[in-house]
Amino acid sequence: MIAKKMQQEIANSSAIRAMFLEGKELAEKVGSEHVYDFSLGNPMTPVPEKYNQAIIEAVQQENALELHGYMDNAGYPKTRRAVAENLNQRFDTKFDESNIVMTVGAAGALNVVFKTILDPGDEVLALAPYFGEYRGYVSNHQGTLREVRPDTSTFQPDLTDLEAKITEKTKALIINNPVNPTGVIYSRETIQKIADILEQKQEEYHHEIYLVSDEPYRELVYDGMEVPFLTNYYDNTFVTYSFSKSLSIPGERIGYIAVCPQMADCARTVSGLSVANRILGFVNAPSLMQKALVSSLNERTDVAYYDRNRKLIYEKLTELGFTCVKPQGAFYLFLKSPEPEERKFVEKAKKYHILLVGGSSFSCPGYVRLAYCVSYEMILRSLPAFEKLAEEYREE
Amino acid sequence: MIAKKMQQEIANSSAIRAMFLEGKELAEKVGSEHVYDFSLGNPMTPVPEKYNQAIIEAVQQENALELHGYMDNAGYPKTRRAVAENLNQRFDTKFDESNIVMTVGAAGALNVVFKTILDPGDEVLALAPYFGEYRGYVSNHQGTLREVRPDTSTFQPDLTDLEAKITEKTKALIINNPVNPTGVIYSRETIQKIADILEQKQEEYHHEIYLVSDEPYRELVYDGMEVPFLTNYYDNTFVTYSFSKSLSIPGERIGYIAVCPQMADCARTVSGLSVANRILGFVNAPSLMQKALVSSLNERTDVAYYDRNRKLIYEKLTELGFTCVKPQGAFYLFLKSPEPEERKFVEKAKKYHILLVGGSSFSCPGYVRLAYCVSYEMILRSLPAFEKLAEEYREE
Repeated sequence: MIAKKMQQEIANSSAIRAMFLEGKELAEKVGSEHVYDFSLGNPMTPVPEKYNQAIIEAVQQENALELHGYMDNAGYPKTRRAVAENLNQRFDTKFDESNIVMTVGAAGALNVVFKTILDPGDEVLALAPYFGEYRGYVSNHQGTLREVRPDTSTFQPDLTDLEAKITEKTKALIINNPVNPTGVIYSRETIQKIADILEQKQEEYHHEIYLVSDEPYRELVYDGMEVPFLTNYYDNTFVTYSFSKSLSIPGERIGYIAVCPQMADCARTVSGLSVANRILGFVNAPSLMQKALVSSLNERTDVAYYDRNRKLIYEKLTELGFTCVKPQGAFYLFLKSPEPEERKFVEKAKKYHILLVGGSSFSCPGYVRLAYCVSYEMILRSLPAFEKLAEEYREE
Repeated sequence: MIAKKMQQEIANSSAIRAMFLEGKELAEKVGSEHVYDFSLGNPMTPVPEKYNQAIIEAVQQENALELHGYMDNAGYPKTRRAVAENLNQRFDTKFDESNIVMTVGAAGALNVVFKTILDPGDEVLALAPYFGEYRGYVSNHQGTLREVRPDTSTFQPDLTDLEAKITEKTKALIINNPVNPTGVIYSRETIQKIADILEQKQEEYHHEIYLVSDEPYRELVYDGMEVPFLTNYYDNTFVTYSFSKSLSIPGERIGYIAVCPQMADCARTVSGLSVANRILGFVNAPSLMQKALVSSLNERTDVAYYDRNRKLIYEKLTELGFTCVKPQGAFYLFLKSPEPEERKFVEKAKKYHILLVGGSSFSCPGYVRLAYCVSYEMILRSLPAFEKLAEEYREE
């Protein structure tokens, strides 16, 4: 007698869990060193030592009641100020503490934003392929998610389709940059065009259409690529961020929302975010983590490690004849399935102990996601298996 | 153009903020030592030293990627096991780790429970007076909150009204024990009667009616009073807990849900809670806090401090002729307004720099809540002001 909606969610979740258990069983059978698990997007590079030191110092030096206590639902003023100044230095923005709301990770941030802006029946557009959790985040707040199809030759969005999909009901567009699952970075040109389309549609429909940017991978970029900072392109923008990947601390649930100072009704909207943080039961971002962050905003995990993985796996897979757009950020690679049904490709890969996630989970069937946040050694060990997998398709 | 529902929430929130600012202004005008702020329910007794030590040891000794990393959405198995065993020792229950879901505080826990069990239009009953946030927690998930009236002579619930309010649509009853704002503890007899009513109504309507127990004040009890543990009385029970008060760490957002092992469809329901934790954007309870808890489950803040406050303020206020039920737990006292309109009483108290919250915020007009989680010295300083306030009513 649990909620009907949840019964479906549990079924979906069980499917993922079944896959996870299957992997575990496989590891038990053939030995974990012979299983090549590219299915999980979990950070695996070190937590910066300075961050751990900041935690210890906070506990040793600060008043414990203040350190572990309630603060404004938006977060400690000092942390909010530090985040604002850090963004201003890096992206030439003009944030102050009143534009920053500290959150329980980016997942918390997105739910807080959607709670604040969505009326029942409002539509949110997402650019396929996209992180499947967005569907839940939107439906939690009685919104409906609609998809914009990709240009699969580049995995930049199909802007003609974006334009066509915006209706009277469109309240927001959610963007993930760099993109999970493709590793693509939306270029400055793409972002400018998106901003232009949204501006024009706002005028046409006489109401705000928000741009919601989900940026947990902002710091994981390669070859000196630039990730455009969206408040510099479009006023009605929320940037949501998580420190999960940049500091390798996904379990701590710490992130923020940066609200463009030029957003319509900015102050009241920030009040709304703060109230939503409370009502949704987050109340505030974990306090010790907020304190420890202040001195660690420029700390980074070992991004070069992921880059080394990226180069190896991209080079080898393309050599073997697999097709994919070269990832520029995040730690994913989106491979075209050599046969139309990705499910069959995933099954064949499993025969060689390679675990992948089907593109259907990201609303982009015919592809598979490979997460290379794994050890370099595992990638090396997996290469003969990929060779055999490729051979199977050459034979056909 | 933010959500319509949120506009009302922001207005309510602004009223509270206005009160807060008024208090601040008053403190600036007359000096903070002459302002007697009994409006906030913030813990103010020390964080146990052992807990802070556990945090430092975890950071120094554990693998950082594991310490700050993702785990199952329900929490670290070791923490869940420790919580289960601790409850079993104290309450003669039969939990194991599969019955425990670690959450972002009790507020997070309640949202996770409601997301899991509520279909749109389902009703949740609350026993007035109750913590006003429950309204939001229920409506977040398209449920409707209905109130059961209090027996104001004892502030135990009016069980005849409870029985009358249960309908075909009732999915759950939420209980807070000890109660914010009255400080009353629902007795074993009350709980047994509630369980009997729910059992009978379950049979009548052929579906589960869940008991959701919100217990952040469980450890804050006085005079050796017992707080009945609800899974021992009723099978379809969720106990939600927060360490905010027992360890004075409200900013850290750490709590749990304990699911009665005899609950109908128990395993699937726990899966639902775990999935809800993810979908709602909590993902998991903060990881470092989960680790630090394991060795601190029997630690307590200085409960005797609150007890000393309780005795002083209760004794003095009743001496002055004010009426209230003697609190048995939590750190609140619910005073009868000497005039029918509590708003006027709150205003008169403010004249003497005493800040109180009206009972209407707890769906119980004609009363005010006084939070005695303040310094003993402030209570002593406030007594002459209460004397003047009492005099004002004697003159009338």
